[in-house]
Amino acid sequence: MRKLRMGMIGGGIGSFIGDVHRKAATLDGMIELVCGAFSSTAEKSKASGKELLLPEDRCYGSFEEMILKEKELPENMRIDFVTIVTPNHMHFAPAKLALENGFHVVCDKPMTLTVDEARELEKLVKSTGLLFALTHNYPGSPMVKQAKAMVDNSELGPIRKVQVQYLQGWMATAVEDSGNKQASWRVDPSKSGVGGALGDIGTHAHNLVEYITGLQIKELAADLGRLGKGRVLDDDGNILLRLENGAKGTMSLSQIAVGEENNLSIRVYGEKGSLEWHQEKPNELTTRWLDRPKIIFTPNGNSLSPISLAASRIPAGHPEGYLEAFANVYKNFATHLNALMTKTEIETPDYPTVSDGVRGVQFIHAAVESDKHNAAWVGLD
Amino acid sequence: MRKLRMGMIGGGIGSFIGDVHRKAATLDGMIELVCGAFSSTAEKSKASGKELLLPEDRCYGSFEEMILKEKELPENMRIDFVTIVTPNHMHFAPAKLALENGFHVVCDKPMTLTVDEARELEKLVKSTGLLFALTHNYPGSPMVKQAKAMVDNSELGPIRKVQVQYLQGWMATAVEDSGNKQASWRVDPSKSGVGGALGDIGTHAHNLVEYITGLQIKELAADLGRLGKGRVLDDDGNILLRLENGAKGTMSLSQIAVGEENNLSIRVYGEKGSLEWHQEKPNELTTRWLDRPKIIFTPNGNSLSPISLAASRIPAGHPEGYLEAFANVYKNFATHLNALMTKTEIETPDYPTVSDGVRGVQFIHAAVESDKHNAAWVGLD
Amino acid sequence: MRKLRMGMIGGGIGSFIGDVHRKAATLDGMIELVCGAFSSTAEKSKASGKELLLPEDRCYGSFEEMILKEKELPENMRIDFVTIVTPNHMHFAPAKLALENGFHVVCDKPMTLTVDEARELEKLVKSTGLLFALTHNYPGSPMVKQAKAMVDNSELGPIRKVQVQYLQGWMATAVEDSGNKQASWRVDPSKSGVGGALGDIGTHAHNLVEYITGLQIKELAADLGRLGKGRVLDDDGNILLRLENGAKGTMSLSQIAVGEENNLSIRVYGEKGSLEWHQEKPNELTTRWLDRPKIIFTPNGNSLSPISLAASRIPAGHPEGYLEAFANVYKNFATHLNALMTKTEIETPDYPTVSDGVRGVQFIHAAVESDKHNAAWVGLD
Amino acid sequence: MRKLRMGMIGGGIGSFIGDVHRKAATLDGMIELVCGAFSSTAEKSKASGKELLLPEDRCYGSFEEMILKEKELPENMRIDFVTIVTPNHMHFAPAKLALENGFHVVCDKPMTLTVDEARELEKLVKSTGLLFALTHNYPGSPMVKQAKAMVDNSELGPIRKVQVQYLQGWMATAVEDSGNKQASWRVDPSKSGVGGALGDIGTHAHNLVEYITGLQIKELAADLGRLGKGRVLDDDGNILLRLENGAKGTMSLSQIAVGEENNLSIRVYGEKGSLEWHQEKPNELTTRWLDRPKIIFTPNGNSLSPISLAASRIPAGHPEGYLEAFANVYKNFATHLNALMTKTEIETPDYPTVSDGVRGVQFIHAAVESDKHNAAWVGLD
Repeated sequence: MRKLRMGMIGGGIGSFIGDVHRKAATLDGMIELVCGAFSSTAEKSKASGKELLLPEDRCYGSFEEMILKEKELPENMRIDFVTIVTPNHMHFAPAKLALENGFHVVCDKPMTLTVDEARELEKLVKSTGLLFALTHNYPGSPMVKQAKAMVDNSELGPIRKVQVQYLQGWMATAVEDSGNKQASWRVDPSKSGVGGALGDIGTHAHNLVEYITGLQIKELAADLGRLGKGRVLDDDGNILLRLENGAKGTMSLSQIAVGEENNLSIRVYGEKGSLEWHQEKPNELTTRWLDRPKIIFTPNGNSLSPISLAASRIPAGHPEGYLEAFANVYKNFATHLNALMTKTEIETPDYPTVSDGVRGVQFIHAAVESDKHNAAWVGLD
Repeated sequence: MRKLRMGMIGGGIGSFIGDVHRKAATLDGMIELVCGAFSSTAEKSKASGKELLLPEDRCYGSFEEMILKEKELPENMRIDFVTIVTPNHMHFAPAKLALENGFHVVCDKPMTLTVDEARELEKLVKSTGLLFALTHNYPGSPMVKQAKAMVDNSELGPIRKVQVQYLQGWMATAVEDSGNKQASWRVDPSKSGVGGALGDIGTHAHNLVEYITGLQIKELAADLGRLGKGRVLDDDGNILLRLENGAKGTMSLSQIAVGEENNLSIRVYGEKGSLEWHQEKPNELTTRWLDRPKIIFTPNGNSLSPISLAASRIPAGHPEGYLEAFANVYKNFATHLNALMTKTEIETPDYPTVSDGVRGVQFIHAAVESDKHNAAWVGLD
Repeated sequence: MRKLRMGMIGGGIGSFIGDVHRKAATLDGMIELVCGAFSSTAEKSKASGKELLLPEDRCYGSFEEMILKEKELPENMRIDFVTIVTPNHMHFAPAKLALENGFHVVCDKPMTLTVDEARELEKLVKSTGLLFALTHNYPGSPMVKQAKAMVDNSELGPIRKVQVQYLQGWMATAVEDSGNKQASWRVDPSKSGVGGALGDIGTHAHNLVEYITGLQIKELAADLGRLGKGRVLDDDGNILLRLENGAKGTMSLSQIAVGEENNLSIRVYGEKGSLEWHQEKPNELTTRWLDRPKIIFTPNGNSLSPISLAASRIPAGHPEGYLEAFANVYKNFATHLNALMTKTEIETPDYPTVSDGVRGVQFIHAAVESDKHNAAWVGLD
Repeated sequence: MRKLRMGMIGGGIGSFIGDVHRKAATLDGMIELVCGAFSSTAEKSKASGKELLLPEDRCYGSFEEMILKEKELPENMRIDFVTIVTPNHMHFAPAKLALENGFHVVCDKPMTLTVDEARELEKLVKSTGLLFALTHNYPGSPMVKQAKAMVDNSELGPIRKVQVQYLQGWMATAVEDSGNKQASWRVDPSKSGVGGALGDIGTHAHNLVEYITGLQIKELAADLGRLGKGRVLDDDGNILLRLENGAKGTMSLSQIAVGEENNLSIRVYGEKGSLEWHQEKPNELTTRWLDRPKIIFTPNGNSLSPISLAASRIPAGHPEGYLEAFANVYKNFATHLNALMTKTEIETPDYPTVSDGVRGVQFIHAAVESDKHNAAWVGLD
């Protein structure tokens, strides 16, 4: 075994998410960053690469240059996969080019701007046999995996109701007007796509519902808000959900919920039991039951399912957080890629795929469509 | 001053809510129970009265008998007001008769089965000048009053978003088939009205939103569930809200949310700050701010508004609960009634009125109407 | 059955604890307040009685007058028991006189100033056959009763470790110098006795340990603080505990712990399981286990012991608090007294007795003695 | 700048703490692992090195071999520092040898078995001018740094009282008899030293008190337990504390507290304010005040001190945990070492030093001595 070689697209120094991806990818010692097209100019890209202690000739001025030049490198040097951490509008092209040139892909969410693009990537993945991981990090949390396992094992019974919310407050004021780069591209439809909060946080909420319940959201009715002055994209949303098995629910999204930091929370109610998880206190999974008292699970604690245990690195009571969950996506992707490269048979590791990416883009478009029609029901397909 | 004399309609021994009303009404020593029409027969009513240590001749076989006979008693004996704690379909008639015969009224929610009945009571209250309190108990909580005061004082800025949920699990199975009387009338439209969970818990959620924000819900879109086998009334609901000032929100209701006990929770987001309150942990009000850390208020703690301080009986750190909040409705009603009887000028005490009752019935009907039309928007007026 | 007639000693209008006792005693409709010696002068006592709507001739100028005059009243009028809610130095004399004149007694803690007085009351109770309840209210909480039941049923296994703390901050500054009556008698040894915080809150912590574990504290080593300027009595304490079965623990007390409201908390560790309870969030009992996840019990929730269920008045999820727990002491005392008066055989109800009172006074004196000798070990007997 | 080169002593594959150190050291991209003496034999050491993808010739059979051979390597290859992650008895010798051969040292706690050894290392550090970091990880937490800053800034006023506890349950049964290696060396005095839980977790609690308050514990009175069958070292302890400024407190330690995972918690009370932090929920710092409501700080949230902000990597609401705090010790050490190597003037970064190591060993010995004399007071110096 050797470390997998990763090339990063986007994520120049100063970018929040670039740093997160670098730390998450390398945490388990299975992956090393060997090159990057970190910024829109060769000069900036090299400056970032220098801080990252990369050789100058592996710092590229564009993703095209990186992909094509890396392809020319000897097999024992060139990257195994690219990781795409650019704003939304810059996901599709590099992902497509990487797949077309034989590189596996890790890509940030939302996967693409349009459903057509998403479907095109899905087809490419299928036809090339390459791996594709979408970095929804929350399913990487040990307690989310425990939640999923309990639903899968029918411990909760058939699911009847879901409540999910993803509330942030950092865009409550016009931060995009005062030089906040994170905010400025997010409010720009040419970079963010048709959804604002929908794409940025709504896709996480959508994915979490489908991941834990194993059920697809069949239709939704969305009432969106554009509360920041001059904003054309949603920064708030209230959505009714109907799942494929008849279960119903609500989704509440906001980036203008003053004082909320990163409050992604979910409750799932079955016929026999229910569960509750809060991202900001990720090391607890609360479960409730028809005829038993409330039971709280903790990572690496008693009575966990194997997929939850596998997702924890350290003993119970030693809190793991955002980064560790994020790293689990890379770890499971790397495990899969290693198995593929060494032709080892393994059970497919658990990480979000290109199909989850398609679902996410469908979700954004359905919600925008519904909102245009005064929260009429719109299907996701 | 003397104790106010109360006659109870409904609430025979064994009734949960009758006992709650008796304890709440008498907690502050301002009210005494002097008579009752506790049950549907004189015999049962007398049996309940005996346990309550009431004289036999003040235990009546019907509300009509009670109201008419009490009216004949000397002024220094007869009741000052009736309290109506029967199932929903038995609110209107006794309330009307009491008002018509000069008695003040305390009445459980939802106030009536129809909006017309509700409006009729509202007119009667206006024309008679009698007092009418509706027992929404949650506005009686010191932390809810603090929440209201902070919104009233513009500390949160204009309200932008509301999330409210009222989740219970006690009807997750077919409890109405196994002799649970609380359940059996609630699933019966002839007793409960057009709303099931809507009337039982939804009206509390609705009232809490309007009480804290000081804003009316202008329209809603409701997707209701009837999940218990054979149930014709809703036992679950997911509702989009639009408030009169343009704020939006979600309401999630359930009586089949397995394992939930009495989870009424609310979050209100303004432009400058936000707040969060959970009925099951009523002695905390969490507030969040643009530029300050999270601040937690506690009853009788530091920095509270006068209406919150007035609603606590004991020093900070000594938890008050459901009953104490409930008693605040009676206490404020009694204070008002005393002032009226003694012709004392006071600021009108803070308790839910007949107009809140009208709003609640409108809410139920709007939600049922919306649900019939696949969650179309329906106005509340 | 009839309501039991109670006469109150102390607790004039304005007194925090007098009001608590009145509400707690009458909450369940088993007891009525019929007379009182509320204050040190007949005039003040009558003023208090007037506000309480008592007849003037039942408002006495001293406890002696009350006890002796009530004794002369016809049996169907006179009090059944006295409740003593005065500062500490005024417990012994009225309790003694009441017992000597055939009245049952409810008495606040700490029971007396000296161990000799405590033992004298214990003997009197034994020789007269009268009932004596000590108002430690915390054992009245449904979750504390659940804790006790779980230890009694050996669910936790033999107890190995105890941690208890009772932390308040209201005396962090010199409140006794600015007219706070609650504070001024507490810092005065002639009224409070040899212990300050020890008597006021330490006895609650001591009682809670012995109640839940069923084990006596055998010896202790106390390091007390007198941090308020000029205070001669302890307002803070750190204590090592050894229990009769060899278990050990710590007790931390404070009335100068800035910002703490009424933080009484306990943790008990056995060989197989452990439990944790916080007075400020009384409606949860957290339990931890060798081989199961954390389990949280709630009042009237699933899987409770009978003594816990009996201590709740309302359905799960409707929070009960300080007052309700306090009322359970009166309710159980009243149930016992009713059984005694009607010569009914019942299992002795669960409330703190004169013997718990003796233990509490022993605890205070042992801690003071230990502190005098630089935290040397001192036995409690 | 280049990555600092680290050689690890101990921490073979399978070791919990070795893996933690590797992840923590490399998280921020400032350090790389280049060699190791991972196990007691060359063969095992090479096996671990292979899994870690290290070249075989940098996997040594002993710490002596590693230190001496690395010294011979060219400057641009050889290690900059060693990190010692062996059981307690194997800290002193490698630390001494490393310092004597010019290598900086990172060392696990407790630093040495005896106070003399600890003092010898302290002298060596002073005389060589080399850097020495002790891996108390909890001071690396952003909220602990906030706590320290608030005390340093006199926001709490003079400290009056401290409560600290470190409770685990994993040794509640005789795990050392069933092949648990973590347990077996910890119960063996030849490897663990005179303290069991004292050294393993007590030193963390001790360090946390002194770090946050800036005050030394002057004397203590310890009542230790050896509850596991056949254990000669303490697995439980209850300790009274006296701080240098007259403040007092309690420390409660346990590794037999059934069901506790890693419950390190601290409360510090000053004259004006107090604070509370729980390691298992590290992303909250609760503060309480004389005249303000409770205020909760969060990492990267509003109103933080610079040293707290510097210790967070990701935006507020994205939980950081054990590993991130641990990595802060390495990061600050690496920052210091970089400055030293590049002769840059910087403010000395905040990490535990050799002097903290001396204090920790003194603490263990004082507690053992006190316990031998029935919890008599013993000084720490």
